Amino acid sequence: MDEFAIIQRLFAPLAAGHQGALGLTDDAALIDGPGGTQWVVTADALVAGVHFLPDDPADLIARKLVRVNISDLAAKGATPMAVLLAVCFPSDVTEEWLERFAAGLKADCETFGVGLIGGDTVATPGPLTLAMTALGQVATGSAILRSNARSGHDIWVSGTIGDAVLGLAVAKGDDPPGLDAAARSFLLGRYRLPEPRAGLGRALVGLAKAGMDISDGLIGDLAHMCRASDVGAVVEAGKVPLSGAARRCGSAIAALLTGGDDYELLFTAEPGDAASIAAKGGEFGVGVTRIGRITDEKGVKVVDESGKPVALGPLGYRHFAGTGR
Amino acid sequence: MDEFAIIQRLFAPLAAGHQGALGLTDDAALIDGPGGTQWVVTADALVAGVHFLPDDPADLIARKLVRVNISDLAAKGATPMAVLLAVCFPSDVTEEWLERFAAGLKADCETFGVGLIGGDTVATPGPLTLAMTALGQVATGSAILRSNARSGHDIWVSGTIGDAVLGLAVAKGDDPPGLDAAARSFLLGRYRLPEPRAGLGRALVGLAKAGMDISDGLIGDLAHMCRASDVGAVVEAGKVPLSGAARRCGSAIAALLTGGDDYELLFTAEPGDAASIAAKGGEFGVGVTRIGRITDEKGVKVVDESGKPVALGPLGYRHFAGTGR
Repeated sequence: MDEFAIIQRLFAPLAAGHQGALGLTDDAALIDGPGGTQWVVTADALVAGVHFLPDDPADLIARKLVRVNISDLAAKGATPMAVLLAVCFPSDVTEEWLERFAAGLKADCETFGVGLIGGDTVATPGPLTLAMTALGQVATGSAILRSNARSGHDIWVSGTIGDAVLGLAVAKGDDPPGLDAAARSFLLGRYRLPEPRAGLGRALVGLAKAGMDISDGLIGDLAHMCRASDVGAVVEAGKVPLSGAARRCGSAIAALLTGGDDYELLFTAEPGDAASIAAKGGEFGVGVTRIGRITDEKGVKVVDESGKPVALGPLGYRHFAGTGR
Repeated sequence: MDEFAIIQRLFAPLAAGHQGALGLTDDAALIDGPGGTQWVVTADALVAGVHFLPDDPADLIARKLVRVNISDLAAKGATPMAVLLAVCFPSDVTEEWLERFAAGLKADCETFGVGLIGGDTVATPGPLTLAMTALGQVATGSAILRSNARSGHDIWVSGTIGDAVLGLAVAKGDDPPGLDAAARSFLLGRYRLPEPRAGLGRALVGLAKAGMDISDGLIGDLAHMCRASDVGAVVEAGKVPLSGAARRCGSAIAALLTGGDDYELLFTAEPGDAASIAAKGGEFGVGVTRIGRITDEKGVKVVDESGKPVALGPLGYRHFAGTGR
């Protein structure tokens, strides 16, 4: 079983009857808040050597932790409010490292306007492990869910796709050929410090019909959205927005469309709302690009300009892939 | 720095200005809920080899995870409602183990009436690591806080103290002498499967003035409560309730008063409410025992029947003790 099978077969039954759990198929859960609001609640775990490199700067690790959680809230259209942090430090962690970690945490709690309201601090004999729970608020019923994609919707993404998977290669010293220092630095930054689209996400409430953030790779995540909505999708590979640095890498488009850690918004909308969505992107200084269409036919197809299928490898990062269990 | 110093020096500043964070000195945080209620939110992390033994049965590990979180909610007087689970599985975890883990999770979600509403499932190259966030509800302003202990209050505990630290010794094959099989089984159960006092905790709202659960050892946790309330305490060692099995172990009382994992309630109350509290204990079938008094003089003193101080070792479990940092 990969983690999706674990969640669906073993954990989802524990969510049955709890409406706000959304069947464990969304980025976050919903619980009632005060006066016409709902809390959007999400939890993410990051492990050294899996989600970040053990030698990454401590402040950037903390900031990435905040940002991947804020990204989930942004995808639901929620206003970030608070976080809880459960942190398992290796017992040999130094005071200097801790101070740098806390400084990064502070910087991004301020950037995104969230308070640290609780958590747990323990030692581990294993790698640094971080679990954050983030709480945001939406007007009741206005959260942008994964399950509302409908045939005929346009498919949109924010920002550019595939930078982070290239940045990971840079971080590992496995630089794609032909990159100058500026491009390397840009890609590395996109891997280490995602830019959650909190302002844009809130502004898309009412315009975006279905939404999620891209964390495990564009096409794999789109497939999750399609399953949650019981629809399919066609993506035009040539329309997927790439950064200048990514274009210079000359990597196969498949690697960019299936690489993880983008933390951009993936959402659907009525074709008639395209101009309004483009205007929202402009307002927040974030590119927004139409890359395809939701279809009745199930599955996700990626096509080139002539409509021919583009071959893709495995869709999306899987933590337990290939174990045969 | 131990974890308390880390939290107070590095993390508490990030809670400043967020009232419901309670300065990160309580078991849980408070956020606004619907119509005259507050959500009580707590997060706890458990690591294999630190909080449980790697060979402990998978279902009991899951149940302990739920229970330590429910215990925090119980200590605040909250009704448990929902949990989120961020779980880091070693990549060699077997399907049989996962099924047993999920079965334990299901059993205790049902026992305590909570739904699993979200979380994250990832792989780790390290030990099994579990982080749970639990949400409970209270009427606004009625949560039992750590910071409300006042000089003259009685100090109460639920259940019996010290069983779990003895159970850990049994689990490690380091049995205290003179124990029969029934006593070993009882103590082992107290370590592996704490009994959070959810019903009693809710019933103590209005009677208990200050409260917390005992997770790091009675005296160390009482010291945390005293610091949060800016008071001190005197505990009469002879009044601390011990199980028959614990008494038969003949362990030094200091080891029982400072051992961890009790997951009993520690609370204070006006002396005039003693009969009402005893009645609540009877109603829920849980022993409740007065063990001392809150004082103006700071610090926690443990005295014997003649009023002489009882020598104690280090107070409470510290994850980073002895590292010199």
